[in-house]
Amino acid sequence: MSLHPTSFHELVESRRSVRRYRPDPIPPETLDAMLRAAQRAPTGAALQLYSFVRITDPDLRDRIATLAGDQRHVREAPEFFVICADTHRIERLLAHRGSESGIGPTMALFYGLIDATLAAAYLALAAEAMGYGTCFIGGIQNHLDEVARLLRLPRRVIPLVGLCIGRPAEEPPRKPRLPLATILHENGYQEPTPALLEESYRVMAAATRSGDWHNVLRKYGASGGVMERREAVLHRALIQQGFR
Amino acid sequence: MSLHPTSFHELVESRRSVRRYRPDPIPPETLDAMLRAAQRAPTGAALQLYSFVRITDPDLRDRIATLAGDQRHVREAPEFFVICADTHRIERLLAHRGSESGIGPTMALFYGLIDATLAAAYLALAAEAMGYGTCFIGGIQNHLDEVARLLRLPRRVIPLVGLCIGRPAEEPPRKPRLPLATILHENGYQEPTPALLEESYRVMAAATRSGDWHNVLRKYGASGGVMERREAVLHRALIQQGFR
Repeated sequence: MSLHPTSFHELVESRRSVRRYRPDPIPPETLDAMLRAAQRAPTGAALQLYSFVRITDPDLRDRIATLAGDQRHVREAPEFFVICADTHRIERLLAHRGSESGIGPTMALFYGLIDATLAAAYLALAAEAMGYGTCFIGGIQNHLDEVARLLRLPRRVIPLVGLCIGRPAEEPPRKPRLPLATILHENGYQEPTPALLEESYRVMAAATRSGDWHNVLRKYGASGGVMERREAVLHRALIQQGFR
Repeated sequence: MSLHPTSFHELVESRRSVRRYRPDPIPPETLDAMLRAAQRAPTGAALQLYSFVRITDPDLRDRIATLAGDQRHVREAPEFFVICADTHRIERLLAHRGSESGIGPTMALFYGLIDATLAAAYLALAAEAMGYGTCFIGGIQNHLDEVARLLRLPRRVIPLVGLCIGRPAEEPPRKPRLPLATILHENGYQEPTPALLEESYRVMAAATRSGDWHNVLRKYGASGGVMERREAVLHRALIQQGFR
């Protein structure tokens, strides 16, 4: 297997989410290399509180694609993973040696989300470093409880996002980012000035079809938007999976 | 600024957490390059629901180091950031254009943690790609409510972890990882067999001083352990910061 000898900064500068894939399957040894790179992600106390569920069954893939908002790339990507926070495994390991778990539901979610996301970031970057395209799929959050049931996830395992991987069949434009001054604070939180909010809208306009980022923010964040609709589902999923 | 032309896989294979740093400051243009690389992290709908608080005030750094369990490397690292999930900014942006936020507390935490962790993974990797060492600091979770107050974080901003960055003054051993078979599932969750649990204990023994991973698991996950002690603090911090 040949690796692209690209520097991390080149990799990062060129990356964008890819939603159209060539059908070529990923060779098993390449997939294995990606997964082993993902396992090298930092993890608090090496607890590795995450699981990846690889979806190879076309019917299951189709059902998840539908739940995620009928996303064609979830069906078509050569590989699709559901990334899960998992404190079930550590509870099993403790029980195997006769110890009782003391992990509370809130901490399990917090710690598990961080570990799982670090590993997911590494998995996607490892794929991209080998010339593959990736796309995280937040759409599964529309039906997180149902996705968890479909995958027969035990208590204390919860899906976060999906991840498509495959050879890119498109070169989408790179999306802009907020001014660094809105993200970076020194020694305490600095509220953005109205001028910085205006500047944010200006630079992020290029990420939109309409030319007005307010439309995107409204779609996701406003009253009646995507995040509000996902709130009850997520709450239900957390109770169902033992995180509440 | 010169970049190490290392491949992602070499970078990942050689990485380990570094807790001893040379005192050399990180040049501003290098730090800027790291932060801009972090900003390229994937983010759902480009919402960028995170903030980095750079801690340059020695007194503040000292207080955080004490809260994090008196960790010397938090005091000594040339750079130290507190990584935060942040849906406050998007609420400000919506309000700036007269829209009301519909983001619920549970979704704010879930989405914010994912976005913030992706960006943190990129920040650490960008530093490592330039020859720096890093260490994530979960210890701030011992007093997350107090860290949030110290940094004057507004409602809907919550710290997750700290991140030390600096030239390494040690070359610690690389920690092992669980057998891939425990992490990877296909089309549904597969419970680990007793043999796989035994194998997990066997390979993870090298991550411990005592030679028995059960000691580490107990310290963190068992009744009376680190995660149990952090549960009430986290719960309090979530309420304080508007995520419950």
